[in-house]
Amino acid sequence: MIIVLKNSQQDKIQKLCDLISSRYNVDVHISYGKSKTILGLIGDTSSVDIESIQAQDIVESVKRVQEPYKKTNRKFHPDDTVITLENGCKIGGGNLTVMAGPCSVESQEQIIEIAKSVKKSGANILRGGAFKPRTSPYSFQGLGEQGIRYLINAKRETGMPIISEIMSSSQLPLFEEVDIIQVGARNMQNFELLKLLGKTDKPILLKRGLANSIEELLMSAEYIMANGNEKVILCERGIRTFETMTRNTLDISAVPLLKKLSHLPVVVDPSHASGIAWLVEPLAMAAVAAGADGLIIEVHNNPALAKSDGAQSITPQMFDGLTGRLKKIIPALDKEF
Amino acid sequence: MIIVLKNSQQDKIQKLCDLISSRYNVDVHISYGKSKTILGLIGDTSSVDIESIQAQDIVESVKRVQEPYKKTNRKFHPDDTVITLENGCKIGGGNLTVMAGPCSVESQEQIIEIAKSVKKSGANILRGGAFKPRTSPYSFQGLGEQGIRYLINAKRETGMPIISEIMSSSQLPLFEEVDIIQVGARNMQNFELLKLLGKTDKPILLKRGLANSIEELLMSAEYIMANGNEKVILCERGIRTFETMTRNTLDISAVPLLKKLSHLPVVVDPSHASGIAWLVEPLAMAAVAAGADGLIIEVHNNPALAKSDGAQSITPQMFDGLTGRLKKIIPALDKEF
Amino acid sequence: MIIVLKNSQQDKIQKLCDLISSRYNVDVHISYGKSKTILGLIGDTSSVDIESIQAQDIVESVKRVQEPYKKTNRKFHPDDTVITLENGCKIGGGNLTVMAGPCSVESQEQIIEIAKSVKKSGANILRGGAFKPRTSPYSFQGLGEQGIRYLINAKRETGMPIISEIMSSSQLPLFEEVDIIQVGARNMQNFELLKLLGKTDKPILLKRGLANSIEELLMSAEYIMANGNEKVILCERGIRTFETMTRNTLDISAVPLLKKLSHLPVVVDPSHASGIAWLVEPLAMAAVAAGADGLIIEVHNNPALAKSDGAQSITPQMFDGLTGRLKKIIPALDKEF
Amino acid sequence: MIIVLKNSQQDKIQKLCDLISSRYNVDVHISYGKSKTILGLIGDTSSVDIESIQAQDIVESVKRVQEPYKKTNRKFHPDDTVITLENGCKIGGGNLTVMAGPCSVESQEQIIEIAKSVKKSGANILRGGAFKPRTSPYSFQGLGEQGIRYLINAKRETGMPIISEIMSSSQLPLFEEVDIIQVGARNMQNFELLKLLGKTDKPILLKRGLANSIEELLMSAEYIMANGNEKVILCERGIRTFETMTRNTLDISAVPLLKKLSHLPVVVDPSHASGIAWLVEPLAMAAVAAGADGLIIEVHNNPALAKSDGAQSITPQMFDGLTGRLKKIIPALDKEF
Repeated sequence: MIIVLKNSQQDKIQKLCDLISSRYNVDVHISYGKSKTILGLIGDTSSVDIESIQAQDIVESVKRVQEPYKKTNRKFHPDDTVITLENGCKIGGGNLTVMAGPCSVESQEQIIEIAKSVKKSGANILRGGAFKPRTSPYSFQGLGEQGIRYLINAKRETGMPIISEIMSSSQLPLFEEVDIIQVGARNMQNFELLKLLGKTDKPILLKRGLANSIEELLMSAEYIMANGNEKVILCERGIRTFETMTRNTLDISAVPLLKKLSHLPVVVDPSHASGIAWLVEPLAMAAVAAGADGLIIEVHNNPALAKSDGAQSITPQMFDGLTGRLKKIIPALDKEF
Repeated sequence: MIIVLKNSQQDKIQKLCDLISSRYNVDVHISYGKSKTILGLIGDTSSVDIESIQAQDIVESVKRVQEPYKKTNRKFHPDDTVITLENGCKIGGGNLTVMAGPCSVESQEQIIEIAKSVKKSGANILRGGAFKPRTSPYSFQGLGEQGIRYLINAKRETGMPIISEIMSSSQLPLFEEVDIIQVGARNMQNFELLKLLGKTDKPILLKRGLANSIEELLMSAEYIMANGNEKVILCERGIRTFETMTRNTLDISAVPLLKKLSHLPVVVDPSHASGIAWLVEPLAMAAVAAGADGLIIEVHNNPALAKSDGAQSITPQMFDGLTGRLKKIIPALDKEF
Repeated sequence: MIIVLKNSQQDKIQKLCDLISSRYNVDVHISYGKSKTILGLIGDTSSVDIESIQAQDIVESVKRVQEPYKKTNRKFHPDDTVITLENGCKIGGGNLTVMAGPCSVESQEQIIEIAKSVKKSGANILRGGAFKPRTSPYSFQGLGEQGIRYLINAKRETGMPIISEIMSSSQLPLFEEVDIIQVGARNMQNFELLKLLGKTDKPILLKRGLANSIEELLMSAEYIMANGNEKVILCERGIRTFETMTRNTLDISAVPLLKKLSHLPVVVDPSHASGIAWLVEPLAMAAVAAGADGLIIEVHNNPALAKSDGAQSITPQMFDGLTGRLKKIIPALDKEF
Repeated sequence: MIIVLKNSQQDKIQKLCDLISSRYNVDVHISYGKSKTILGLIGDTSSVDIESIQAQDIVESVKRVQEPYKKTNRKFHPDDTVITLENGCKIGGGNLTVMAGPCSVESQEQIIEIAKSVKKSGANILRGGAFKPRTSPYSFQGLGEQGIRYLINAKRETGMPIISEIMSSSQLPLFEEVDIIQVGARNMQNFELLKLLGKTDKPILLKRGLANSIEELLMSAEYIMANGNEKVILCERGIRTFETMTRNTLDISAVPLLKKLSHLPVVVDPSHASGIAWLVEPLAMAAVAAGADGLIIEVHNNPALAKSDGAQSITPQMFDGLTGRLKKIIPALDKEF
């Protein structure tokens, strides 16, 4: 960390150096220039509070040189993390993993029918929401516990691992047979929930918040890992910008950036990113070409009757077309699917 | 709600009308044009799922005419909501209410010293964080339960009502003696928490999320009100934009817009909006001139040693200068302070 | 266009209908509902000024149903526009066209060396800036007329068509031998320049502005086309968002959206979108997978010595690696390169 | 400027230092740390190209310590710039200057009528557009030269100084009798136009672009000043964000920031910032309370019939109410109006 000081008296500078040394486990290196004095902080600066430094009278600006994340950082873990589910399905490390299924679990028949269909088209994991975060309190909020039960039955029937979203700490006991727990974009900085999930040994799919930077996504992953759970999957799902033609703006650059900065697997959600069914395929293709380890896609047997996210759900037929095209480009990208 | 249809066959249009009538409690009014047919939905459309409508093959676009929020809507509640705390302090309805105090409660002495000081300068309510949402798991996370206890002692000592942030449902029992419960920007769409707070009778200060629209803020307030608690205070605290000179961009227009759309009191947080101590005063002045019912401001007796948010905390002296200037413009704005 | 009226008196409604009929060449269709009256405007609404309608007392809201662009609209021109340059090089319609070269033309030797190198790797068109829009008046502003001359010499030497940026109407005479004139992001709404270019018969590559919507990009293309020049190439080059890790955020969804809404060719500039050399390849791959008709890429023989945009320029070796990988995926995408 | 290097060999570091010394007029100060080497550049770094530095292999990151703007910088010009027009009207330095008038000049009668009315309410300067930048080529584009003539006649009739927007270099001769030339948001980075205006001695009102940072606004002002014209007025008029309830988001923080960073006068345009007539007053009040030196406001005698920007134009009556309220708060803000 580099601290640029205003032209200050010797004793004030010394006082600041002492304060820093006493608070954090770092060495302070002073470099006197003609018009500015610069402090270099050497050591583990991840716990140094930039704002507290900036609050000092004599400080002009502060620049972090080291990343504030450690466990998620590829520098300290050069190899890709590969997460292996009970049935052997792998996420990360050269595999393309496709998660597909309805936004909401609506009935036992619906989820089993969709599961069979997407499995046939090549999906590896079944997605389905039981607890639904909805902007309006008057919208369908999901089947809750019953939805989780239907999902588990679909897993038994098809052998597909399942992923579902958690919205609150109190729901955790219901997720025992769920293979991957999803943290939604709105809860990316629900730190109490992240801490709790860090104490489980379940794979966690962590979605990037609508207004969260790539670094903040890594810091939220760090919350889970610092609490003991290293099985984190990062998910880019679009950020909020001024463009209104799409529901959100897929930040495709986040894929190669996250892959470079971190060893964790990166998946993309083209359904939420666009909010428009026919855009799912081109965005999925782009995500895979940019290096994504996986996709999570909303598929509904009758989007027009879906209880949520109908406009962005594709049909099993569209999904089959998409996996067909993915299979065509995958060999040219040195991946396996 | 207006639904614009693509040029379609009569039977498909009829089928859609039947579907809508069967699902929602609305009347469907058909208007045949030369090239487009338009459906008008009359009645309570707040539960109509726009996305589900958009997912229909024959639908070109959908436009909401009525606001999707009801209990927060000024149309159905023309008078200002005024919230009265136990000690008689009022929020809303022509009063200017100033909440001030440190970002984090750090010790018993600190919180009492700041409380006495801001009270002397005219603050009505004492703020102080015990549970702190921090981007990094390695940063100071607040004193927790102990912090709440210190805050309650400061309340007893000074007679000031207190406000503090809740981060998780499990913390609710600790807030019994807290006068206003704050929901932070990161939890604005933590719907499980909102539902729970809707079942209490505590005043709730709901902060706008960094990437949330004004309408979404009202919908989150609607979650609390629809669950039974009508004492909601809305708080604008800056949104995330491309400008990096300030921590966030204070959306000053949100103040008059929220006042027009809703009857709930609106307060502004200039500290988080700017992230820079010397900007707090001009933004506070602007907020009040734009019609805000209150301010929530971070004040620390020694910002350079603050355990969090030092860079944006003002000193008791700066706070005293600010309240002095507020007192000068208040009469010209027909408010009371 | 649909106009939702507040509950109003009959005579006011009639007055508004008369005003609209007298101003615009449209039919007004009135539909009386219980609580709202709705006007439907039938005909060519592209010249109707939404703001003027919204300024009417009795108007609650206005919704455009037809797109405001005509000549760029695929609805009225279903087939892809294919632009053929003098040497036979085609842009649009199933071809992948790669434009490559330095940000700035720096010397005769530099531009010829880079031209030969990128041509060998498969580039179709040579790019090079002579007039450079720079944020600072103290930065290198390009070689100007001399730069254009060097570029034309490189065209003669290698046979490659050339593209260069115009910054002002007065520079137009210098572009006679330039094959494609580029309008930069900062000039996307320099309407006087667009009108002038609309009166030439040169292909125009129009870059999307940093804060401009997809619809506004199409409206700027419409300015050129409405003035008589139908040879417009649209270019997505990243928009400004809160994310600071990349210079801009590539809006990958703009590619399939522009292809669907318009018949014009769409190219992507991964260099400006990211601002980081190593990100150019994954973004280029993503753009092509999403359906782009072409790429425009900054290549410099010595990025560390480049007079502008060094950080985002790739070396000829990196460019050769990229075209190699493009050639591998192109067959799977049913394109030709 | 501080350059953080990756761990590198001595000779590579020396080579970089030599390159920098040979290119720019700065001293390079090397500071060797355990894991990183840091270069400090001392001297006038405003011409140093950050990107070129970042393109060096051994560079990890670069941080500017000095602002890249000089002539606009308050550091080198501590006193407020006050611009005095021919008739004695002052902009900057404790005065509140109000510019008002229609979006477009529509006729001789219209502009004279509005001029008289706003003058009576206290406006100091008459605004009126003759050349109108419109998103659509099919919208009204202004009266052009005729509009300027009408405006000049209104100036003669009322004695009010006038301000109007220039869209292209070729229009400059028409602006001889115009007191202030306005550069619109879309042309903020039309550098050729800025250079030309820098060679005139007219006061220039420079509007911030929709996606431009505060620093970029200052750099565009620098273009004008570096070319010789020091009479620049900065104008905040809203930036583009995800919020759609307002046309743009007024960045109120820009007002105190620009006042601190620069000595130039700062005015606010609440009409374009909001796009909604009734929001003009609260935003104008907020701007003045935040320290703005002036306001520029759209006033139309019949907004419903305005040929442009009707929805955001206020009536002369509303304008009179606004200036009345401004006069009430001005004394409390130590300004003169």
